Amino acid sequence: MSANTFGHLFRFTTFGESHGSAIGCVVDGTPPGIPLTEADIQVHMDKRRPGQSKYTTQRKEPDTVKILSGVFEGVTTGAPIGLLVENQDTRSKDYDEIKDRFRPGHADFTYARKYGVRDYRGGGRSSARETAMRVAAGAIARKVLENILGEDVSIRGALVKIGDTAINRNNWDWAEVDNNPFFSPDADSVPAFEAILDKVRKDGSSIGAVVEVIASGIPAGLGAPIYAKLDADLAGALMGIPAVKGVEIGAGFDAAMLSGEENADEMRMDGDDVTFLSNNAGGILGGISTGQDIVASFAVKPTSSILKPKRSVDATGHDVEVSTKGRHDPCVGIRAVPIGEAMVACVLADHLLRHRAQCG
Amino acid sequence: MSANTFGHLFRFTTFGESHGSAIGCVVDGTPPGIPLTEADIQVHMDKRRPGQSKYTTQRKEPDTVKILSGVFEGVTTGAPIGLLVENQDTRSKDYDEIKDRFRPGHADFTYARKYGVRDYRGGGRSSARETAMRVAAGAIARKVLENILGEDVSIRGALVKIGDTAINRNNWDWAEVDNNPFFSPDADSVPAFEAILDKVRKDGSSIGAVVEVIASGIPAGLGAPIYAKLDADLAGALMGIPAVKGVEIGAGFDAAMLSGEENADEMRMDGDDVTFLSNNAGGILGGISTGQDIVASFAVKPTSSILKPKRSVDATGHDVEVSTKGRHDPCVGIRAVPIGEAMVACVLADHLLRHRAQCG
Amino acid sequence: MSANTFGHLFRFTTFGESHGSAIGCVVDGTPPGIPLTEADIQVHMDKRRPGQSKYTTQRKEPDTVKILSGVFEGVTTGAPIGLLVENQDTRSKDYDEIKDRFRPGHADFTYARKYGVRDYRGGGRSSARETAMRVAAGAIARKVLENILGEDVSIRGALVKIGDTAINRNNWDWAEVDNNPFFSPDADSVPAFEAILDKVRKDGSSIGAVVEVIASGIPAGLGAPIYAKLDADLAGALMGIPAVKGVEIGAGFDAAMLSGEENADEMRMDGDDVTFLSNNAGGILGGISTGQDIVASFAVKPTSSILKPKRSVDATGHDVEVSTKGRHDPCVGIRAVPIGEAMVACVLADHLLRHRAQCG
Amino acid sequence: MSANTFGHLFRFTTFGESHGSAIGCVVDGTPPGIPLTEADIQVHMDKRRPGQSKYTTQRKEPDTVKILSGVFEGVTTGAPIGLLVENQDTRSKDYDEIKDRFRPGHADFTYARKYGVRDYRGGGRSSARETAMRVAAGAIARKVLENILGEDVSIRGALVKIGDTAINRNNWDWAEVDNNPFFSPDADSVPAFEAILDKVRKDGSSIGAVVEVIASGIPAGLGAPIYAKLDADLAGALMGIPAVKGVEIGAGFDAAMLSGEENADEMRMDGDDVTFLSNNAGGILGGISTGQDIVASFAVKPTSSILKPKRSVDATGHDVEVSTKGRHDPCVGIRAVPIGEAMVACVLADHLLRHRAQCG
Repeated sequence: MSANTFGHLFRFTTFGESHGSAIGCVVDGTPPGIPLTEADIQVHMDKRRPGQSKYTTQRKEPDTVKILSGVFEGVTTGAPIGLLVENQDTRSKDYDEIKDRFRPGHADFTYARKYGVRDYRGGGRSSARETAMRVAAGAIARKVLENILGEDVSIRGALVKIGDTAINRNNWDWAEVDNNPFFSPDADSVPAFEAILDKVRKDGSSIGAVVEVIASGIPAGLGAPIYAKLDADLAGALMGIPAVKGVEIGAGFDAAMLSGEENADEMRMDGDDVTFLSNNAGGILGGISTGQDIVASFAVKPTSSILKPKRSVDATGHDVEVSTKGRHDPCVGIRAVPIGEAMVACVLADHLLRHRAQCG
Repeated sequence: MSANTFGHLFRFTTFGESHGSAIGCVVDGTPPGIPLTEADIQVHMDKRRPGQSKYTTQRKEPDTVKILSGVFEGVTTGAPIGLLVENQDTRSKDYDEIKDRFRPGHADFTYARKYGVRDYRGGGRSSARETAMRVAAGAIARKVLENILGEDVSIRGALVKIGDTAINRNNWDWAEVDNNPFFSPDADSVPAFEAILDKVRKDGSSIGAVVEVIASGIPAGLGAPIYAKLDADLAGALMGIPAVKGVEIGAGFDAAMLSGEENADEMRMDGDDVTFLSNNAGGILGGISTGQDIVASFAVKPTSSILKPKRSVDATGHDVEVSTKGRHDPCVGIRAVPIGEAMVACVLADHLLRHRAQCG
Repeated sequence: MSANTFGHLFRFTTFGESHGSAIGCVVDGTPPGIPLTEADIQVHMDKRRPGQSKYTTQRKEPDTVKILSGVFEGVTTGAPIGLLVENQDTRSKDYDEIKDRFRPGHADFTYARKYGVRDYRGGGRSSARETAMRVAAGAIARKVLENILGEDVSIRGALVKIGDTAINRNNWDWAEVDNNPFFSPDADSVPAFEAILDKVRKDGSSIGAVVEVIASGIPAGLGAPIYAKLDADLAGALMGIPAVKGVEIGAGFDAAMLSGEENADEMRMDGDDVTFLSNNAGGILGGISTGQDIVASFAVKPTSSILKPKRSVDATGHDVEVSTKGRHDPCVGIRAVPIGEAMVACVLADHLLRHRAQCG
Repeated sequence: MSANTFGHLFRFTTFGESHGSAIGCVVDGTPPGIPLTEADIQVHMDKRRPGQSKYTTQRKEPDTVKILSGVFEGVTTGAPIGLLVENQDTRSKDYDEIKDRFRPGHADFTYARKYGVRDYRGGGRSSARETAMRVAAGAIARKVLENILGEDVSIRGALVKIGDTAINRNNWDWAEVDNNPFFSPDADSVPAFEAILDKVRKDGSSIGAVVEVIASGIPAGLGAPIYAKLDADLAGALMGIPAVKGVEIGAGFDAAMLSGEENADEMRMDGDDVTFLSNNAGGILGGISTGQDIVASFAVKPTSSILKPKRSVDATGHDVEVSTKGRHDPCVGIRAVPIGEAMVACVLADHLLRHRAQCG
C-alpha cells in the first residue's frame, strides 16, 4: 500500500533523497537466526556503487552500509533491520539551474504536478540513488533464500543489449559478468559496448539497454495466484526500477508469435524428477514457479539527463531549453543489473515466506 | 497481500472456479453516490463473454451479473459491492481424462506442486473464467473514474498483432474495434486475422497475440513513487492476466535502442497547458502520470490447451502424451482485450483514490 | 486496509446489507487439504442465528450457509472460499418511519454524515446481521487451527455479566453454556438473567452485558510485535464487534490497581514444561502468546433500538422523538458470544500463519 | 501486515533496540506542503523522555530527533520522512544477569520461544524505548490533522488513576497536566500520587495506572466500517502500547451496566448544528466519528521489572529467582500519556486520509 514499502512478508521501506544527509531502509519480516554482517550487504552495494568505471556517473559515494538494528551477535533476531548509508559527495549547486526547469523525460514535471513542492537537488526522491537501498535489501533477501532453500540458490543478472547491439547468447559465461564494466556475460561483446559508450559520452548523449536476471535453485510452488502471481510481482518489481519501460518473463513478446505446440514446454520424467524440454515459460506457469530457472528481462530507457539541449517548459509556464550538466550515467542500464537482481531476490524471498504461511 | 484481492483503495476480491456453481467478487472502496446498475457492468461482461464468434471458445455462458449489495436506489453507498455470476454450461467430464495429467504450458503441474490438491475441472481456479470478475470490477472502476474526472476519461483496448501479423497503425480507428471479432482497430487486418485463426483451428493449434490499452483523459499526478508507481502497478496488473508473458509502457523495449535525445519527450507551452511533442514515455514519468495518453501493451502466449498431442507427465510420475479436448479459445489474446481494459481501469481508479488521500 | 476485510494471511471479506438479497464473504489464505463441509460452518451459524429464544430478535432467518468455491471433494484447495447466505425475513417497511430520523446511539447519523447516502432498511450495512459472516469465517478459522495445532485447540465464549449482575465464577462449567439461552457458564445465574431480560422486554428497553472468550491449546510464540501484537489484534477485533465499548486481556483494568509483584505471573518448571502460577497476563506477554489460556473479555452496550422514545434530530435538521419498532435483541451481548469466539479464532488463525511464515 | 509498521495511509515503520546504536522510524503518506521542523517533533519527545523526574527511569537519554529526509526548505514534500534518535546512555552490563533468565511478566520468555534468539540487553526490541518513535510519528500526525482540519484540533492525554487512587474529575484542568510529573489534570491529586510513588520506589515495587486521551475538533465522518472502525483501530493502537491490558471507548465497561435509554446519547438541533446531550459513545457510533470529543482510556499494568525477587525459570529449564536491577519506571503509566496521545493522533491522521480517498 505504502508508496515507499516493497513486499509483504519479506518487505522493506526506504527513505532519503539524492542530496539529503542519508538514505536508509528498514527490512522487516526476516526470519530469526540467519547469520548476517555488513560485509554480506556491502559486496552487493559495491556492484551498484557509482564512480567505478568511466561508463558510470563520476559521483564518488563509498555507499558504506551500516546495520543499526535487528542483528545481535551476528544473527538476525526477527526484529526489523535498520540500514543507513550517508551521502557524501553531493554537489547540489549543479542543480540550481534546473530548479525551476523540467528536464524532458525526467520526473521533474510529474513530481511538481503531483506534490506542488519537490526537492530538486539531484532529482531528490526520484533519483536512482534510492536504488542503493534496494540492493541492500536484496542482499538480505538472498540470505533468507539461502538459509531456507540451501546454498544452491543463485540470482544473477547480466546486461544483454546496449542500444541495438546484443550479446551473443552462445558465449554466455557467468564468470565473465564481473570481468567487464558492463556486466556482460559475453566477453566478445565488450569492445563493441565500449565503442558505443565512448561515442555516447563524447556526444553528451545516453543510450538504452536490456538486462536479464536468472534465478536458479528455486523450487516449484512459489507464487500466489490470482493477484499475487510470481510473474506479476516480478513485473511490478522490475518495471518499478527507474527508467524501465518493458518487462518479459521467459519468451516474453516472442511468445505472442508462437503456436501452442511451439510454446508449451514439454515435460518428461527423469528418474523421480520432472524435467522440462524447454523454458519458454521462464520458470513460471499460472503464476507459480515450476522449478526451472526463473528468467526475467527488462528494457531500460536511455538516461534523460543529457548534455544535448532539449525543448522543455519551466515552472512558471515558459518555453525553455534544458541541458543537464550534473554527473550522470550515460547508460543507466548498466547499474540496473545489480538492482534487477536485488528486486528478483526480494520478490522470491517474499513469496517463499508466503508459501510457508499457507502451505507449511 | 491477499492472493485473490487486487488493488488497495479501490480493490476487489474474487472467488470461484471454472466448473463450480458460481464465480463472484466483492468490490470495495467505491465512493458513495455514484449511479450504478447491472446494465453498466453487463455491457463490458458481454465483450469478454465466450461463445460469441467461432474464434473463441464455444462454451455458452450468459455471464449475467447480479449486484447483491452496495447499491441502494441506483447509487453506490460506499458499502462493498457483491457481484455474482452463476456458471451454467459446465461439462466437467471433458476433463476426466486430464484429471491426473499435467497439460504442458498450463498451471496443472504448478497447482499440484503448490497445493497438493486441486479442482482439475476446467482448470479450476486457474481458469481464465475468473477474469469475468475482473471485467465486472473494471466496469465499476470506469464509473469511479468518470464520476470524479468527468466523462472525457476513456480506457480502450485493441488487438494489434496475432502471431507475426501486426495491424497497420496508420489505419487505427477506434470505431472499428467493435466491428470485428478480433477487437482490431484496423479494418484491413481482419481478413488476415481470420485466415490465421481458421488455420489454427483446423490444425487443433493455437496462436499468441499482442494487446494495447490506451487511457485518455487521465490528469497529471496519478501514481505513487517509489514502490507504487503507476507503471509498475500496470505492469503487475497486466502480467497477472492469464497467459501474459510481457508488458510494455510507451516505447517499451524499443526505448532500449534509443539515444537520450531520441527518447525524451520534449515539452512546449500551448497557452496555459503543457504539451508533449511525442509520447515515448507512454504517459508516465517517474511512476506518475504526465497528462498524456497512458499507453500499455502486453504479449499473450498461445493457449496451452490444444488438440495436438504433447509430451508430459502425470501425477504418479509417468511419461504421458496430452491432447486437450475441452472447448478452448484458439487465441486467448482476443478476449484479453476487455480484460486488459478492465485491469487498467482498476489500477487508475485505485491511484485516483490514493492521490486524493495524500494530495487532496 | 480495506474496510470490509479482516485479517492478513487468514483473511475474510464480507458484503451485504440487512435487507438486501444476500450477505456473503470470501475467506482467503486457507491452507489446502483441510476437510471442510457446510455443516462444519452451520453449527456455529446456528448459535448466532436470530429467533431462537424469546430473549433475541424475532426475525426468522435460517441463515443457511452455502459454500460456492474453494472446497473440492470435501477438502480446501487453497483457493478462496466464497460463502453465501440468503436473506429471507426482511420487513423493510418497519423502517420507513426512521428513514430520515437518526436513532440515538445508532450508526444512522454517522453513516449519513460520512456517505451522504445510506441503505436505511434495518440499518443497512451497519446492521449486526453482517456478523453472521464473521461466524462463518470463524468456523473455518477453527478448522485451520485444529488442522495445524491438533484437536486440543478450543475457543469458547461465555456471557459473564448482564447489567450489573455477574455470574459466580466458582460455578463456571463450560458444559452449561449451551444449556441456557444466555450462553452463561453458571447455571445458577440463569433465573436472574431471565428476570432481568423479562423486565427489560416488558419496559421496551435493553441492557448491556460482558462476554469472555478463552482460547486453550494455543502454543507459545504467536503474535508479531510491535504493531501486530496478538493482544492488540484481539482488541481491535473485539472492539469492532457492533456495540462493543471496552476490551480487556487477562486482568484488564484490574491490573492497573496491582503492584508489580502482585501482577507478574511467576513461572516454575514442571518436568520439561514451563508452568505459570497465575494468568494475569491473559496468556500474552509482549504481544506474544505464552502457552497459557488466552483470555479476553469485552463490554457490550445496550441495544440502541428501543421502544422507549428518545430525543433526536432528523435528516432535514429538525428535533424529533424516535421510538424504534423493528424486531430487536433486548440484549445484543447474548448473540455477541459466538461472534466473539469467531473473531478470536480468526485472529489466532491469522497469527498462526504469520508465525509459520517468519519462524517456519 | 508488517509487525513493525503502524497505519495504512498515514503510516510509520520503526526499528531499533533499547541498547543498539540508534532507534528510528520512517513516516510515510504525509501530504506535501506541511511546515515541519525538528522542534515540532522534539517538544513531544521531551514529554516522554526518561530521567525527567524521580518518578521515571533514571536512564539519561536526550532523545534528540533528527529528520533525515522528506522535508525540504521547511515543508514536507510527500516523500517518506526518515527520523533517527541515537541511543546514548546504554548500560548493557546491567542486564548480564538476566541474559538467560526470564523476568516474570516480561516479554523475555515469549521472545525466546518465538524467535529462539533475542537481544536481551534492556529488553532489546521489546523495550518501551521503541515508543519514542511513536511519539515522533504522532507529532507529525498532529501536523497533518491541523493542516487539513485547522488549529482547533487537539489531542490531549492525562493520567486519571494510579493503583486504586483516581483523580477527582470535577477538578479536571488541562492546564495542570504539564505542571506535575504525573500528567494529572487534577492538582489536588498530586500529593497522593507522590505518596504512592514514593512508597512504591522504596519498596522496590511498581504500580499500575489508567490513562485517558481526548481528541477534540474531529469532524463527524471519520472511520471506515466494518473492519477499519475508528474505535477498533484505536483499541488496537492503545492495546499495542507496552503494558496495556484494557481499552475503553466512552463509557466503556460501564456501558454494559446501563439500559438502552440511559446509554443512548440524545441529540438536539442547536441552530444548524447537531448537539449531543451526553457522550457515552465516546464520540464514535458504528465505528465512525460523531463530531463529539473522542474519548479513549486504557489500563497500564505495573512495570514487570522490579527489585523484589520473583520465582521464574531460565533458558536452560531451571527454576530461578529474578530480581531486576536496571533503571526502570516504577509506574510506566506515567510516560504512557504522551504515547497514548501519539497513537490516537496517528489513528486519526490515517483515517482522515482514508476518508479523503473514499469520500473526497
